[in-house]
Amino acid sequence: MTSYPHSSKPRILLIQGPNMNYLGKRQPELYGRTTAAELDQMVLEHADRNGYELTIFYTNTEGAALDKIYEEMDKGMDGLIMNPAAWSFEGSALRFCLMSIAKPYVEVHIRNQYTMKHVSTLADLAVGAVQGFGVHSYVLGLDALVHHLRSH
Amino acid sequence: MTSYPHSSKPRILLIQGPNMNYLGKRQPELYGRTTAAELDQMVLEHADRNGYELTIFYTNTEGAALDKIYEEMDKGMDGLIMNPAAWSFEGSALRFCLMSIAKPYVEVHIRNQYTMKHVSTLADLAVGAVQGFGVHSYVLGLDALVHHLRSH
Amino acid sequence: MTSYPHSSKPRILLIQGPNMNYLGKRQPELYGRTTAAELDQMVLEHADRNGYELTIFYTNTEGAALDKIYEEMDKGMDGLIMNPAAWSFEGSALRFCLMSIAKPYVEVHIRNQYTMKHVSTLADLAVGAVQGFGVHSYVLGLDALVHHLRSH
Amino acid sequence: MTSYPHSSKPRILLIQGPNMNYLGKRQPELYGRTTAAELDQMVLEHADRNGYELTIFYTNTEGAALDKIYEEMDKGMDGLIMNPAAWSFEGSALRFCLMSIAKPYVEVHIRNQYTMKHVSTLADLAVGAVQGFGVHSYVLGLDALVHHLRSH
Amino acid sequence: MTSYPHSSKPRILLIQGPNMNYLGKRQPELYGRTTAAELDQMVLEHADRNGYELTIFYTNTEGAALDKIYEEMDKGMDGLIMNPAAWSFEGSALRFCLMSIAKPYVEVHIRNQYTMKHVSTLADLAVGAVQGFGVHSYVLGLDALVHHLRSH
Amino acid sequence: MTSYPHSSKPRILLIQGPNMNYLGKRQPELYGRTTAAELDQMVLEHADRNGYELTIFYTNTEGAALDKIYEEMDKGMDGLIMNPAAWSFEGSALRFCLMSIAKPYVEVHIRNQYTMKHVSTLADLAVGAVQGFGVHSYVLGLDALVHHLRSH
Amino acid sequence: MTSYPHSSKPRILLIQGPNMNYLGKRQPELYGRTTAAELDQMVLEHADRNGYELTIFYTNTEGAALDKIYEEMDKGMDGLIMNPAAWSFEGSALRFCLMSIAKPYVEVHIRNQYTMKHVSTLADLAVGAVQGFGVHSYVLGLDALVHHLRSH
Amino acid sequence: MTSYPHSSKPRILLIQGPNMNYLGKRQPELYGRTTAAELDQMVLEHADRNGYELTIFYTNTEGAALDKIYEEMDKGMDGLIMNPAAWSFEGSALRFCLMSIAKPYVEVHIRNQYTMKHVSTLADLAVGAVQGFGVHSYVLGLDALVHHLRSH
Amino acid sequence: MTSYPHSSKPRILLIQGPNMNYLGKRQPELYGRTTAAELDQMVLEHADRNGYELTIFYTNTEGAALDKIYEEMDKGMDGLIMNPAAWSFEGSALRFCLMSIAKPYVEVHIRNQYTMKHVSTLADLAVGAVQGFGVHSYVLGLDALVHHLRSH
Amino acid sequence: MTSYPHSSKPRILLIQGPNMNYLGKRQPELYGRTTAAELDQMVLEHADRNGYELTIFYTNTEGAALDKIYEEMDKGMDGLIMNPAAWSFEGSALRFCLMSIAKPYVEVHIRNQYTMKHVSTLADLAVGAVQGFGVHSYVLGLDALVHHLRSH
Amino acid sequence: MTSYPHSSKPRILLIQGPNMNYLGKRQPELYGRTTAAELDQMVLEHADRNGYELTIFYTNTEGAALDKIYEEMDKGMDGLIMNPAAWSFEGSALRFCLMSIAKPYVEVHIRNQYTMKHVSTLADLAVGAVQGFGVHSYVLGLDALVHHLRSH
Amino acid sequence: MTSYPHSSKPRILLIQGPNMNYLGKRQPELYGRTTAAELDQMVLEHADRNGYELTIFYTNTEGAALDKIYEEMDKGMDGLIMNPAAWSFEGSALRFCLMSIAKPYVEVHIRNQYTMKHVSTLADLAVGAVQGFGVHSYVLGLDALVHHLRSH
Repeated sequence: MTSYPHSSKPRILLIQGPNMNYLGKRQPELYGRTTAAELDQMVLEHADRNGYELTIFYTNTEGAALDKIYEEMDKGMDGLIMNPAAWSFEGSALRFCLMSIAKPYVEVHIRNQYTMKHVSTLADLAVGAVQGFGVHSYVLGLDALVHHLRSH
Repeated sequence: MTSYPHSSKPRILLIQGPNMNYLGKRQPELYGRTTAAELDQMVLEHADRNGYELTIFYTNTEGAALDKIYEEMDKGMDGLIMNPAAWSFEGSALRFCLMSIAKPYVEVHIRNQYTMKHVSTLADLAVGAVQGFGVHSYVLGLDALVHHLRSH
Repeated sequence: MTSYPHSSKPRILLIQGPNMNYLGKRQPELYGRTTAAELDQMVLEHADRNGYELTIFYTNTEGAALDKIYEEMDKGMDGLIMNPAAWSFEGSALRFCLMSIAKPYVEVHIRNQYTMKHVSTLADLAVGAVQGFGVHSYVLGLDALVHHLRSH
Repeated sequence: MTSYPHSSKPRILLIQGPNMNYLGKRQPELYGRTTAAELDQMVLEHADRNGYELTIFYTNTEGAALDKIYEEMDKGMDGLIMNPAAWSFEGSALRFCLMSIAKPYVEVHIRNQYTMKHVSTLADLAVGAVQGFGVHSYVLGLDALVHHLRSH
Repeated sequence: MTSYPHSSKPRILLIQGPNMNYLGKRQPELYGRTTAAELDQMVLEHADRNGYELTIFYTNTEGAALDKIYEEMDKGMDGLIMNPAAWSFEGSALRFCLMSIAKPYVEVHIRNQYTMKHVSTLADLAVGAVQGFGVHSYVLGLDALVHHLRSH
Repeated sequence: MTSYPHSSKPRILLIQGPNMNYLGKRQPELYGRTTAAELDQMVLEHADRNGYELTIFYTNTEGAALDKIYEEMDKGMDGLIMNPAAWSFEGSALRFCLMSIAKPYVEVHIRNQYTMKHVSTLADLAVGAVQGFGVHSYVLGLDALVHHLRSH
Repeated sequence: MTSYPHSSKPRILLIQGPNMNYLGKRQPELYGRTTAAELDQMVLEHADRNGYELTIFYTNTEGAALDKIYEEMDKGMDGLIMNPAAWSFEGSALRFCLMSIAKPYVEVHIRNQYTMKHVSTLADLAVGAVQGFGVHSYVLGLDALVHHLRSH
Repeated sequence: MTSYPHSSKPRILLIQGPNMNYLGKRQPELYGRTTAAELDQMVLEHADRNGYELTIFYTNTEGAALDKIYEEMDKGMDGLIMNPAAWSFEGSALRFCLMSIAKPYVEVHIRNQYTMKHVSTLADLAVGAVQGFGVHSYVLGLDALVHHLRSH
Repeated sequence: MTSYPHSSKPRILLIQGPNMNYLGKRQPELYGRTTAAELDQMVLEHADRNGYELTIFYTNTEGAALDKIYEEMDKGMDGLIMNPAAWSFEGSALRFCLMSIAKPYVEVHIRNQYTMKHVSTLADLAVGAVQGFGVHSYVLGLDALVHHLRSH
Repeated sequence: MTSYPHSSKPRILLIQGPNMNYLGKRQPELYGRTTAAELDQMVLEHADRNGYELTIFYTNTEGAALDKIYEEMDKGMDGLIMNPAAWSFEGSALRFCLMSIAKPYVEVHIRNQYTMKHVSTLADLAVGAVQGFGVHSYVLGLDALVHHLRSH
Repeated sequence: MTSYPHSSKPRILLIQGPNMNYLGKRQPELYGRTTAAELDQMVLEHADRNGYELTIFYTNTEGAALDKIYEEMDKGMDGLIMNPAAWSFEGSALRFCLMSIAKPYVEVHIRNQYTMKHVSTLADLAVGAVQGFGVHSYVLGLDALVHHLRSH
Repeated sequence: MTSYPHSSKPRILLIQGPNMNYLGKRQPELYGRTTAAELDQMVLEHADRNGYELTIFYTNTEGAALDKIYEEMDKGMDGLIMNPAAWSFEGSALRFCLMSIAKPYVEVHIRNQYTMKHVSTLADLAVGAVQGFGVHSYVLGLDALVHHLRSH
């Protein structure tokens, strides 16, 4: 698990769900060839350019995602962005967690879920969702979250 | 109906579906207080900053949306972004239209459709979707479409 | 489309849905022989007698009805009366429109919809409905709307 | 929208439903490569040769089709020919309109609807239907309508 | 059974199904007053004017229709036009026959089958269908078939 | 096929459906031992005694029955009596034929169809039916038809 | 229709059902390339070699099959062999006919009906059935019938 | 179990399923009075006359049938003919066996299975089937198999 | 397999189905501790005392049971008693065998099949059944069979 | 994660499932305002007063709960009390764990699960459950567990 | 059937079910190209190396498998390994046999049954199962059985 | 969590799912008395003897299993063997992981899953499965995987 703490506000936590660490090597015809490291660099530069602190957290463990969310809550986290991946099939603990924290949540997906006829069990708790634009979905989702934070 | 043609490429058409002209005054607790005019200015500035031509078209009539889409196709439209609003409930003519034109389509919604348990009948024909971020969904959807056009 | 603006308050908008412009010539055994013009005169006299301003708007296009409703909202419309005709079969856009404006709505029908086993998809958003009295349904509907406006 | 009024009787209105304006460019493997303009010329020459007045009206809007039908009714329209396209899936207002006017209606389709297992919701109100012969379906449908008018 | 062989190409066979010989006398309020003999003269003149050979065959017996189709196939038949009448309710043998011969088939009906809520069990094997124009359906169907043969 | 034309009025046609020509030889334990020839003599004597003209026609082909019915219509047939046998299972063409001719029809069966739990698809178009009395059903049916003709 | 009467006993009637006259030309990938004429010669030689009289009757008409069966019954027919083709889908009259004549019946099919999951509505009235061996099914079926006649 | 190996090609194996050894004594009103021994002599003479080698194998045990089939495969078996009798109700092992060997299979039955409303679970894997002709079904099935082997 | 032929009439065959050879060692808490050999002695003494010949046959193979039944039929078997064991679950071949031989059959079971909610697929062909009395079921079944033979 | 080992017997492990660490801050209108730290103090005092050793373990990860349970088992744990929270929706691994350890288990919930119509998938493995008394549920559950341990 | 008795303990019986004798020649793309003889040598060498006696028995007959199992039980069989093949679809007698003998049973399959969605009707009576590793499944299954015998 | 890296090829990762660390102490009547440490030693010796590198990883957390799989993928893992235990009930993340890595997977279980009527949701993605042999299942599964790697 990689974790890049930066200092400047607002504070945003990006959680990458199960199997996302293998991005670029995982069925690239479906998920693209951008690696997790390249994606990290892309969104960190976005954070620099747009003046917010970004913590990236990759985990394959739902409980570790909760731990990290509460840890960041204690440090003053302002918003959460997540690609829940397989957790969008079950994920009861995450669902209760999203209800517990009173912070804006943005859900992102690399692929267009409407084409796959899959409805995430978490997305109705989000401020909004961005899906289908490959790794660019992350940049857009971060824009969305930052904008939401600044205008509320 | 307001229509702002600008000159620079790529050429993008933004269609605002039924009741969107009343934005800002329409159930502001759900749709926000930004007016249609303010939204137009916001996205046109975005077009200026990001170097693409943007035509904005408001209509309450599905057929007028088809007219505009074909008119812009004749002028060299590269991509379509739309908030289909109520047309996402029926919209057979729009569905055939999206199949007729061979251009990337991005769907945007002010509210998070997952919260409303509504599944758009058009979104599976889109490259991707952005929803739930109020009027900022438009800026993000435009970013997504421009990025898609430049990388394909 | 005929539009008769009058000056006196409260301001009421009467919308005639698809095929209503052909009243008197359209299956008179079902809809009666009073023409649209005669009906207009009848309701305008009713407006004079009862001290309210009445704007009449005929259209076959759901989107145009939305356009007109929003135009009258900008001019200070107090209430809406409408014969939605065929829009009562689909009409998602009108449904959202009625939710957008915070104004009393009265629905009228020339024929008794219960006899036709048809349930309007809009009528649950109305203050009330009058149906089955031929063109006299309009007079009764206007009475009802004026009374509602004065007592609220 | 193109509209070619001609002077000679009988008077016929041809309505082209949604997406038909894009004929020739729209999925040509399904709908053929004849453009809307070429089709217009073909049927206007047919009108000249066969001694009837033909008004062609393209619209993507169901309400505009009603407006045009009633406008031509006022000018003495004798018959209607239409390719309802996507309106044959919903089209309640058109259905009531066809009942309102007491004029012969002919329905045409470029493709054989029996092969597509689609049953038009309007065709039972027609004098008859011609389908499956590509753009030649229009010529045949006009022949049919003219013949019907002259023999009734 | 009447049979009129003519000489000129292309060669077309017109089959009249059960009860068609009684045309003109059979429920004229539904099927019109043109007799079978008058219809024959009408389509033979059409064949003369349009330069194709037409063989007309009336039969009340499905098997006799098959006999005639195969007889004409041996003589070089190019296309088939048929009013299957009651055979469109069952007609397994005709269905296999249409699959056996590799020739274009056009189906015609005097009455509009959509009004009768009847879907022919043969029409999906046709190039196209013409229905509802009384005896003029035959002229139109022949035009359609000749046009199809000349353009393929 | 045997056909006995007689001269005296009213003119009645008796049609014997499929397998009736084999009467007397066909499962005599079910259909009796009276042969077709004996039956013919029996009903012709009945015709003589009761003063009507009777034409008897045996055929195994539904289409030939139609041919004969139309031939007799041209000669002035007043009524039809028929044992449709197996045609009462399908027989769409006969059904349309019975609607085409505006003449009283009486249906007869040697066996009681109710015992066989069979409901004829033609009998609802008849003036009435006589069944279950062996070959005497024909005599009764003719009585019934003659009586009907004389009292209408 | 071809009919080859021969003189020697036993007397067998071979009936070829609808579309069988087109054998060899009809979807040869399914039914083989042997023509009807070649098949006739093959079975007539078989009749010569095996000492029985064979009458071959091709018809597309179920009623004509009944006529022929009864005609041959009158001439002393000993057995029937038939490829009922499409009549095995409906064929009520044939079913009653097979019950009427007290003669052995053999059913043959060119293709293996078990592979096609089709169960003939006539085959339960047969002595037996031969299917799946192309045109050789006829030779085998004739052998079977001759053998049955000689041993009963 | 009796087994008669002969020498000449092609090599055919005939398998007699359960209860077939009791032929002639087993319900002779259903299965006939020819004994198994008489049947053997009959088919062996047929093999002599028609120039093929025939091995006959009787068994009441499905597994013994598999043993014999594989034994004959090793000796160069060209085709299989079988009366599966009761194995046509279950017979999973035989079904897999027929798939394992790549040889033509003909199924025979003494009685007409269509009369018994039984559909064999093995017959769809056969080239074809002969049924209902008593013991003569075997001779016919052998003819069919030899003919198939010589023409493929 | 053990087989004890005795000489005195009537002649009875006792068949022990699959797994019965292991009696006494097989789940003795369910099937008892009497061995197959002890059971044989018990029933042979019963045969001596009651004056009938008894042949006992154990087999695990349904086909071998058929072989033995037919062998004993040839030797003059008068009746059959059997514990079909697992064959009572499938056993189509045995079912046909019981129909083939025209001899009384008695079915026995050590355990009460009703307790096990199992219904034998063979028992409806038996004269009667005895079940649930441990090995004494055999003695009772033999009593029953002998009594039946002597009284018929 | 906080973990307070104490020394006195019996030894009890209290596990706090996902999101419980956020108690007091998490939807206080539902879960109350007592924090996790205050709750810990409350139950530790209860342990002191009632003479048992209490280890408290908070985790959001089901696997970590298993790790801890097995660690405490190695140290001599006598009983387990747990608020499984969201694990009561899935939690297969915990279910097997509860079966693996042979120790009494008490389940506690802050809210009354019956009101929420939720049935825990783990509670059937518990000695008993206490739910609905806010944080006092823990005190009651500990009382119950201690009592159970002392009386067994 | 091949049977190789060896002397050394423990004693193991390997049963190869129906069609397994044809291994290597039977659909090799599914079952591999190793022949039964090669497989025998492979497992016998394994027996030599691992110090156990192995008897291999191929049979296509379920009853013969029971005979062999009981024969080997009498000789002191310690364990059974079997590929039941098609018997895993029915196999009631084998199921009772496995319950009768109180010896460990291991089930092996060449293909992964989970991929084929087939659940063996025997495998729940086994100690365990090995599947999917081609002929190597046998070696592994024997290892498993020997190990089980030595450790129990 | 214990992790034993060894050096020699091929490289295999063994994952032990939830509750497996408690092996030997966990319901020993079901899972045996071999401890996890003893099992580790057993399989490591097996690795030494058979010349492959083995990494063993115990975890109660599905996400940690994914972490380890990806870590070993980066080090050149050749194959995966796993006892998924409770993850075989849900395990969406593991399922996506097995699809992401393109390496052979073998599934092992200590108990026979067929006895438990449980079908693993992961096993259809495996090369094969070994189950029911207690801890020896691991040795066998490793043999199977090594054999598979060496023969592909």
